[in-house]
Amino acid sequence: MDASEFRRRGKEMVDYVADYMEGIEGRQVYPDVEPGYLRPLIPTTAPQEPDTFEDIINDVEKIIMPGVTHWHSPYFFAYFPTASSYPAMLADMLCGAIGCIGFSWAASPACTELETVMMDWLGKMLQLPEAFLAGNAGEGGGVIQGSASEATLVALLAARTKVTRRLQAASPGLTQATIMEKLVAYSSDQAHSSVERAGLIGGVKLKAIPSDGKFAMRASALQEALERDKAAGLIPFFVVATLGTTSCCSFDNLLEVGPICIKEDVWLHIDAAYAGSAFICPEFRPLLNGVEFADSFNFNPHKWLLVNFDCSAMWVKKRTDLTGAFKLDPVYLKHSHQDSGLITDYRHWQLPLGRRFRSLKMWFVFRMYGIKGLQAYIRKHVQLSHEFESLVQQDPRFEICAEVTLGLVCFRLKGSNKLTEALLERINNAKKIHLVPCHLRDKFVLRFAICSRTVESAHVQLAWEHIRGLATELLKAEKE
Amino acid sequence: MDASEFRRRGKEMVDYVADYMEGIEGRQVYPDVEPGYLRPLIPTTAPQEPDTFEDIINDVEKIIMPGVTHWHSPYFFAYFPTASSYPAMLADMLCGAIGCIGFSWAASPACTELETVMMDWLGKMLQLPEAFLAGNAGEGGGVIQGSASEATLVALLAARTKVTRRLQAASPGLTQATIMEKLVAYSSDQAHSSVERAGLIGGVKLKAIPSDGKFAMRASALQEALERDKAAGLIPFFVVATLGTTSCCSFDNLLEVGPICIKEDVWLHIDAAYAGSAFICPEFRPLLNGVEFADSFNFNPHKWLLVNFDCSAMWVKKRTDLTGAFKLDPVYLKHSHQDSGLITDYRHWQLPLGRRFRSLKMWFVFRMYGIKGLQAYIRKHVQLSHEFESLVQQDPRFEICAEVTLGLVCFRLKGSNKLTEALLERINNAKKIHLVPCHLRDKFVLRFAICSRTVESAHVQLAWEHIRGLATELLKAEKE
Repeated sequence: MDASEFRRRGKEMVDYVADYMEGIEGRQVYPDVEPGYLRPLIPTTAPQEPDTFEDIINDVEKIIMPGVTHWHSPYFFAYFPTASSYPAMLADMLCGAIGCIGFSWAASPACTELETVMMDWLGKMLQLPEAFLAGNAGEGGGVIQGSASEATLVALLAARTKVTRRLQAASPGLTQATIMEKLVAYSSDQAHSSVERAGLIGGVKLKAIPSDGKFAMRASALQEALERDKAAGLIPFFVVATLGTTSCCSFDNLLEVGPICIKEDVWLHIDAAYAGSAFICPEFRPLLNGVEFADSFNFNPHKWLLVNFDCSAMWVKKRTDLTGAFKLDPVYLKHSHQDSGLITDYRHWQLPLGRRFRSLKMWFVFRMYGIKGLQAYIRKHVQLSHEFESLVQQDPRFEICAEVTLGLVCFRLKGSNKLTEALLERINNAKKIHLVPCHLRDKFVLRFAICSRTVESAHVQLAWEHIRGLATELLKAEKE
Repeated sequence: MDASEFRRRGKEMVDYVADYMEGIEGRQVYPDVEPGYLRPLIPTTAPQEPDTFEDIINDVEKIIMPGVTHWHSPYFFAYFPTASSYPAMLADMLCGAIGCIGFSWAASPACTELETVMMDWLGKMLQLPEAFLAGNAGEGGGVIQGSASEATLVALLAARTKVTRRLQAASPGLTQATIMEKLVAYSSDQAHSSVERAGLIGGVKLKAIPSDGKFAMRASALQEALERDKAAGLIPFFVVATLGTTSCCSFDNLLEVGPICIKEDVWLHIDAAYAGSAFICPEFRPLLNGVEFADSFNFNPHKWLLVNFDCSAMWVKKRTDLTGAFKLDPVYLKHSHQDSGLITDYRHWQLPLGRRFRSLKMWFVFRMYGIKGLQAYIRKHVQLSHEFESLVQQDPRFEICAEVTLGLVCFRLKGSNKLTEALLERINNAKKIHLVPCHLRDKFVLRFAICSRTVESAHVQLAWEHIRGLATELLKAEKE
């Protein structure tokens, strides 16, 4: 395919994309296919001779689309939102064309420098403490990771290196293994599974702190665990506080947890993967109070800030904590500006070596929406979740299971878990809307997350009518 | 931005991209900017009100392009190629629009199933042993990772879990820390820095095996290290063999190393990040002989197989080795087909939870080039590197420093390292072409890698004339 064919096919693809987005409401949100559906539909090997573009684009509708869960349908209320916006898609096209790999400053200076400045822009939008910004001479700064899981792992590994060096400096005879055996990380029992995984990968113990009645990690439970572990000869070194848990969007109490981490000289990492985007609105910013106690902070603009996946924003107060943990410098990656202090080689901030020019997406989105446009987007989602909440509250058969703060509503049928499980089965069989469940303590709960960029009050109302109707059928069938 | 504006701006962007690719030869391959150039050019904060698309696209030329290293210029001979093709860009547009996150089968069945089948297609193109393919009922299979670094790390972590469980099953009293302290991984002294990093992250020792005169890891050196370490009470558990090292594209001797790994019950991971693409050509496939001894194999279609970054292809013989190392199943990710055996939840195969619909790129590229088109592309690059090699050989002032097998030529001025360092400085100051150096033992060497999709013999000839001219100037100046 040469440039002139790309001009033609690219424009056709732009129209296909626009058609898809405009018509997505008409597609069934969750597919009908069974496992293994795709393999029989395509050849067993790649073709020797080229297929035509027409063949391929026709197969997209025939083979791919029937198996797609439409995350951007206004009837998609599952998981958490994943971002989708036209400005981000335009930026991604440009990113693909430039196609540079930004592992060092020299590998493409614009790629590194725009990222640093965009992370400062975003940090300012969140009113992050100055210490997290790179500015012209700061010790902190931001980096785009691929996912919150990676950010948590990177923070844990940096903390592990830092505490190991500190202990070895104090007692030069200590081996790494002796230290690692004693290291303990902590998170709330509501934290994302990726935190447990980071502990597993890092080869350290991870302990779950029992959350309180509002599913929040509090000072007393954390302090108790720390005291018990220290008394047992263990070494607490890392705490993950979650702002906006995956199950029910609860918030760990940063103002309590933060000072403990400072006092105990333990690395505090904040995972605000979903909720973080809301902090650009002054009315939600208090939820971030206490971030000043943290060593690292992360959230996903690719969830709720209209920057298409992947774009996970991570800041640290001391960039040398990250670079110290990962830095290895082979000759073929050295360049003349490396030791100038002015430049950043982001490969030392992350697990992979290669990286795309992802900050273009932030630049396009922030500029084409403006801060006010982004705030309006967040507020609309929060308003819709409260609308759904009040619909649920008006039906005495249902109960709300956790405080609704942002765009997630946790609810269930009153009574046994079996009832709500049966309701979910009916919802998923009907495939008019899509949502997923969670457990809150011993309760089986439905999560209704406002997800789509184009979801409106009418969709929420329809979804609720649908759920109510299925509940009525279910309860009637139960009685019979 | 609504769909109708996207239709307009998207088409403008398609033209911008095509213009960029068509005109890239006219742009200086390496930028003139100094560190810190970008920050003063853009506002210190994001705008409150939206900017227009015209503002942004104008700023791309004013602010971004002057700081871009043009990886797809035919005068770019640095690092290794990074893939760029129009079919991959078209697929990426579609991927952005669908915008699903494929962490589980249910999250978007097409995303998971196309990936499994595309990895089988690619595995067949490479003539991988059947054991690495998923097929309908295989125990192995492929997964798309973000980078070779991640693949190495994932393999190391899986091997760490496997050996730990085996040892704990034999001696239930053993703690993980006691075992980890004794674990040793091995790679050639020519292996990529990401291997060392994987050891660092995994908290295990990594030992470099001295390579032979052709920069290859051989049986004798590996066996010697294993014996020494076992005698010292250590536990060898993981070997990385590299096919196509970054410095000089040398090949570890798989047919020697493989049987040792089998005999010692050590996980063998093959990193063929760059070279792997060449194995689709029958004449280069013998370089992969011995892959049958490996537990895992990885290469980057996003380097040399025209699939834009990121797309790192990894296969394992036993998928349960990966899933066993990472599997954690919270309720909100459970789905009804989970235990059917037919389906794959790729989140258990990788470090991050989220993942894009990257197999679309493979599907578009394989179909629009056909296997023959992809083979022709590889062959052209290899031919161009041999053309450059013979140009170097015709000039008695220069020497070739390693065997030229694929698209990389390592060369230098005869004599002291200072001479070649001075030549590189002249090349980089002139900025007509871009290349990077490496060390081979005590020699400072220039790496000339055939990179661009559009590079032709004429560009290689011009590059050589340029280098020769600079060498003549340099040697004249040295004499004076």
